[in-house]
Amino acid sequence: MNRWKELCKSSTLLWNADLCLRGIAQVMLQNNPLSGALFLAAIVWGSYASNAPRLAIAALIATVVATLFAQWLRVDRDALEAGIYGYNATLVGLALATFLAPGALLWVYVVLGAIVSVVATLATSRALQPSGLSALTFPFVLTAWLMLLASYGFAGLSGTALPSGAVVAPFQAYPSDPLDFAGFLAGVFRSISQVFLKSDGIAALLLLAGLAVSSMAAAILAFAGAVLAVVTAHILGAESDLITGGLLGFSPVLSAIAIGTGFGRLGLRIAAYTALGIVFTVVTQAALNVALTPFAIPALTAPFVLVTWLFLLPRQCMETTQSAKSAGDQPDL
Amino acid sequence: MNRWKELCKSSTLLWNADLCLRGIAQVMLQNNPLSGALFLAAIVWGSYASNAPRLAIAALIATVVATLFAQWLRVDRDALEAGIYGYNATLVGLALATFLAPGALLWVYVVLGAIVSVVATLATSRALQPSGLSALTFPFVLTAWLMLLASYGFAGLSGTALPSGAVVAPFQAYPSDPLDFAGFLAGVFRSISQVFLKSDGIAALLLLAGLAVSSMAAAILAFAGAVLAVVTAHILGAESDLITGGLLGFSPVLSAIAIGTGFGRLGLRIAAYTALGIVFTVVTQAALNVALTPFAIPALTAPFVLVTWLFLLPRQCMETTQSAKSAGDQPDL
Amino acid sequence: MNRWKELCKSSTLLWNADLCLRGIAQVMLQNNPLSGALFLAAIVWGSYASNAPRLAIAALIATVVATLFAQWLRVDRDALEAGIYGYNATLVGLALATFLAPGALLWVYVVLGAIVSVVATLATSRALQPSGLSALTFPFVLTAWLMLLASYGFAGLSGTALPSGAVVAPFQAYPSDPLDFAGFLAGVFRSISQVFLKSDGIAALLLLAGLAVSSMAAAILAFAGAVLAVVTAHILGAESDLITGGLLGFSPVLSAIAIGTGFGRLGLRIAAYTALGIVFTVVTQAALNVALTPFAIPALTAPFVLVTWLFLLPRQCMETTQSAKSAGDQPDL
Repeated sequence: MNRWKELCKSSTLLWNADLCLRGIAQVMLQNNPLSGALFLAAIVWGSYASNAPRLAIAALIATVVATLFAQWLRVDRDALEAGIYGYNATLVGLALATFLAPGALLWVYVVLGAIVSVVATLATSRALQPSGLSALTFPFVLTAWLMLLASYGFAGLSGTALPSGAVVAPFQAYPSDPLDFAGFLAGVFRSISQVFLKSDGIAALLLLAGLAVSSMAAAILAFAGAVLAVVTAHILGAESDLITGGLLGFSPVLSAIAIGTGFGRLGLRIAAYTALGIVFTVVTQAALNVALTPFAIPALTAPFVLVTWLFLLPRQCMETTQSAKSAGDQPDL
Repeated sequence: MNRWKELCKSSTLLWNADLCLRGIAQVMLQNNPLSGALFLAAIVWGSYASNAPRLAIAALIATVVATLFAQWLRVDRDALEAGIYGYNATLVGLALATFLAPGALLWVYVVLGAIVSVVATLATSRALQPSGLSALTFPFVLTAWLMLLASYGFAGLSGTALPSGAVVAPFQAYPSDPLDFAGFLAGVFRSISQVFLKSDGIAALLLLAGLAVSSMAAAILAFAGAVLAVVTAHILGAESDLITGGLLGFSPVLSAIAIGTGFGRLGLRIAAYTALGIVFTVVTQAALNVALTPFAIPALTAPFVLVTWLFLLPRQCMETTQSAKSAGDQPDL
Repeated sequence: MNRWKELCKSSTLLWNADLCLRGIAQVMLQNNPLSGALFLAAIVWGSYASNAPRLAIAALIATVVATLFAQWLRVDRDALEAGIYGYNATLVGLALATFLAPGALLWVYVVLGAIVSVVATLATSRALQPSGLSALTFPFVLTAWLMLLASYGFAGLSGTALPSGAVVAPFQAYPSDPLDFAGFLAGVFRSISQVFLKSDGIAALLLLAGLAVSSMAAAILAFAGAVLAVVTAHILGAESDLITGGLLGFSPVLSAIAIGTGFGRLGLRIAAYTALGIVFTVVTQAALNVALTPFAIPALTAPFVLVTWLFLLPRQCMETTQSAKSAGDQPDL
C-alpha cells in the first residue's frame, strides 16, 4: 500500500487513477483504492453479465470526468484525494446508462451529469456545514432525478428501464410467498449488488471483498443490513419480486454502513439504533417507491440519504451518552 | 399543582405519567399535565363516540413508547420534562390508527412510528437550531407521510380512510351553499377537534377547556383561528363538506396559537399579523390537499408547519419593531 | 440620476414610486429605477399586446401593496430601498393574473399574494443567512405555487391558462424541426420576455434596454443566456413550441445574470462555469415541467432558483481560486 502511494506521487496518471478508484470506493463510504478496484471489478462483471458493457464504460467516463473537473474547480485537496468528488459521478454514470437508451446524446448526458454532480457535491457540503452532516449520495440523487425527469421532455433521450407513471393505488393482493431459502439468499446478495444498480451475486461477493479489505466492520454491517432489510420487507408483506431482486435492500445496506460507522465505537446501543435505522430505511424505500409513482422515476438511494441524515443528526445526543457511558457514570440500560 | 409535582418526584410511574400528559398537551403547544389530561379525555371520548377505541389506545401506546425511548436515548432532560418528545408520537399513533386498517402489523407500525418520531424530533430540532425555529409537528408529518405511503407497498398494511389517488383536475362546481349557522358552528368546533383527527363537538369543548386551564390566550386564539378559517374558506368557495367537517380549519387553529403566542406581547400588530397567517394557512391547506392528490395521502398538519415557520422566521424583524415601539421611539402605524 | 434621488427625498410619494420601480427592476436583479421604468413599460406593452390589461394592473397593485406592507413590518431599510421586497410581489401579481380567470376574488388573491410574498422574502433571507445565498425568486415561486394549487380547491377562483394534470408519460415523437432562423430569433427574444410571463419581442427589447442602462454585463449575459438556452434545448430535442415560445429559456436567462454576476470578476473560468449553469438550467426546466405534470401547475422560475443556488453555493471554492489566480500563484488552466 505504501509502495502504491509512492508510485502515485511519481506519476500524474497513477495519481489520477488513485483518485478515481477512491471515488468508486466512496460509493460504499470507503477511502481505499483497493476497495475501488474490487468495486470496479464488480461493475465490470455486472455489466458483462447483463450484456451491457456501456454501463461500466459510463461509470468509468463519469468518474474520470468528475475527477478532472473537480481539479479544474480547484477544490479542497484533502477531500479530492479521499475520492469525495468521484462517487456521485460514478453513480450518475451508472444510473443514466441503466435507465436511458443508448445513443450519442446519452454520452453527452453522462459527461454533463458527471460535471454537475461535482457542483452539487460542493453545494451540498456547503449547505450541510452547520449541521455537521456529509453529502452522502444526495448529489447523485438530485442530479440523476433531474436528468431522468428531463429525458421525458427531450426527443433526443428516451427511457428504457424507467418505471411507468401512474397515480398511487391500493396494493394489489398477490398469492402469499413463503420466501424460501434461495429467495432469501438472492434478496440478500442482490441488495448488496443493487448499490451499484446490479442484480448479480458475483458482483455482491466482489463488493463484500472490497469492503472487507478496507473495513471488516463495514462488510459485516453491509451484510447484516441486507439480511435485516430482506426480513423486514418480508414481514411487512412487500412484493416478492422487489425483495428477491434486492430493490428494497440496497438503501438499507448503505444506511447500515453509514449509521453503524457514524459514531465513535459500535456498542450495543449504537447497534440497536442502527438496526432501527435499517428497518426504517426499508419503510422509507417503500414510501418513496410509491411517492415517485406519478413521476415515473426510480427512488435511487434517496431513502438511504433521508434516513441516514435523520438518524445522524441527533448524533450529539448519542455521543455524549456514549462517552458518559464509557466514563461509567450512568448505569447501562 | 405543586402537590402533583411533589408526587411525581416521589414516584417513577407518576413522573412518566406526567411526561406523557405533557406530551399530549404539547400537541396544542401547552406544557401542562392538566391540559394533557383534558386532551386525553377528548381523544378517549372522540374514539368512543366514533366507535373506534383503538384510536385512543394507539395514541396512548405511542406516547408511552416515545417517552420511554427518549429516555433510552438520554435526551436533553428539560425538553423531555416539557413533553417535547411525546406529542409527535401521540399524533403518529392517532394518524396510523385512523388511516390504516386494524391488524397485528398496525401495532408494530404504531410502535415503530412512535420511536422514529423521537429520532425525527431530535433531528428536526438540530437542523432548525441556526434558525431559532421549533420543530412543531414536522416530525409527525414526516413520519406519518412516509409510513402511510409505504403502506401502499406492503400487503400486511392496508388503508381504510386514505384518500384515493388522482391527477389534479379543475374544481367541480357544486350547488352554492349559504353556510347556515349550524354549519358554521359545526365547522368551527370540528376545526378544533380535528387537531386530534376527531370530528366531534364535545371533544372540541374538552380541548378548549384544556387550553384554557393552561393559557386563556391560547384558548381564545384557537377559537378565533377556527372562526376566521371557516369564514375565509367559505368566502373563497371551498367545498362545504370540508368546511363543516373542520378539515380546512385544524391547521389554522394551530397556526393561530403558534404565531399568536410566538412573539413577546400580543398587541394589535401581532394580532393582525397572526390573522394574516391564519388566512394563508387556509390557502395552504387547500393547496396541499390538491398537491397530495396524486399520492393518496392526507395533508395532516403540514400546512400549519409550513405557514408557521414562514411567519415566525421574520420574528427578529417584528420583535425589534415591538421593542422599538414599546420604547416609544417610533410612531405607531 | 442624482436629481431623481433629491426629488425622492423631498416627496414620500416619489420615494415610494422609486421603491416600486426598483422592486420591478429586481426581477432581473437590477437596483435601478430607470431599469424598473423600462421593465414596467415592457409589462404594460406586453399586457396591451396580449389584450389583457389586467396583467399590468395586477403587477402594479401587487408591487405597491408589497412595498407598503414591508414598511408596515418595518423591515431593514437598506434592503427596502434596494427594492428587495417588491420583485416577488410583481411576479406574484403577474402570475396570478395570467393563470387565473378574472373576477373579484382574483384581486383579493393578488393583494394576499403580495403581502405573503413579503413575509416569504423575509423568511427565506433569514433561512439562507448561514449559506450566504440570496432569496432570488423563491418567495414568488412558493407563494404562487401554493395559491395556484389552492385555486383547484376554491369555487371562487378558477384557472384559465393552467396546464392540465396527467401522470408522466414517455415523450411523444413529433416531426423533426430544423429550427429555422425565424424560430431561433423568436425563441431567443421570447425567452427574455417570458421572465415577465410575456411572449413578445418588443417587450424583450425594452427589457434588454432596461438591463443595459443598469449594467451592460447583465444585458449581454441575458442575451447570451437566451441564445445558449435555445441552442441547448434544440440539440436535446425539446418540443419546438416550447423553444420558440421562450418557455425553456426564461429561467436560463435569469441564471445567466445571477451566476455570471455572482462572482467578483467575469473571467474565462467564470464564463465557462456560467455557461454550464445555463445548460443545466435548461435540463432542470424540462425536468420540473415534467415533475409538475401531475400537479397541473407551471414551473415558474423554480429552475432558475434551484440551479443558481446550486452553482453559487460553491462560490467560496471559485473565489479563493479567483483571488489565488489574480495573485498569480497558480497556473491558468
